[in-house]
Amino acid sequence: MGAYTLSEQKTRTTVDIYGQQYSIVGTESISHIRLVASIVDEKMREINGKNSNLDISKLAVLTAVNVVHDYIKLKEAYDILEREMKKKD
Amino acid sequence: MGAYTLSEQKTRTTVDIYGQQYSIVGTESISHIRLVASIVDEKMREINGKNSNLDISKLAVLTAVNVVHDYIKLKEAYDILEREMKKKD
Repeated sequence: MGAYTLSEQKTRTTVDIYGQQYSIVGTESISHIRLVASIVDEKMREINGKNSNLDISKLAVLTAVNVVHDYIKLKEAYDILEREMKKKD
Repeated sequence: MGAYTLSEQKTRTTVDIYGQQYSIVGTESISHIRLVASIVDEKMREINGKNSNLDISKLAVLTAVNVVHDYIKLKEAYDILEREMKKKD
């Protein structure tokens, strides 16, 4: 399997996500990469628990959908907090 | 194709992600669901541009990996901002 770039530099870590191995290359620490992989693995298992008839590619896409949804919600909360912060300055 | 739950309630939207259709069920607005789908689609195409030999499930898993990475970074920034905010109170 090839190397999949998380970002531009030098740590290479092999992780297991949903029974497949991925070689992740990035500037982040190995523990960070393992944490990310374990979250993706856990979310895939959680979604599979609700929709056990999904094939792995649909499961993975829906995992990405759920994570992007969470990201946007967090970004909205971050922007609100930032505006409140500026008001206090 | 089945219905894939984003959250527990009633909006159902069909979106196209990387050439496949997904029926997303959730409490969110249709425009939010479309935004999420377009971000996932865009990220998959971006990662495919760097690793064109990936199959769709690996591509989607790596998309989820990248988004979880972004989420953790944003969460760290959010927590820092929140602590600064509390200091000002």
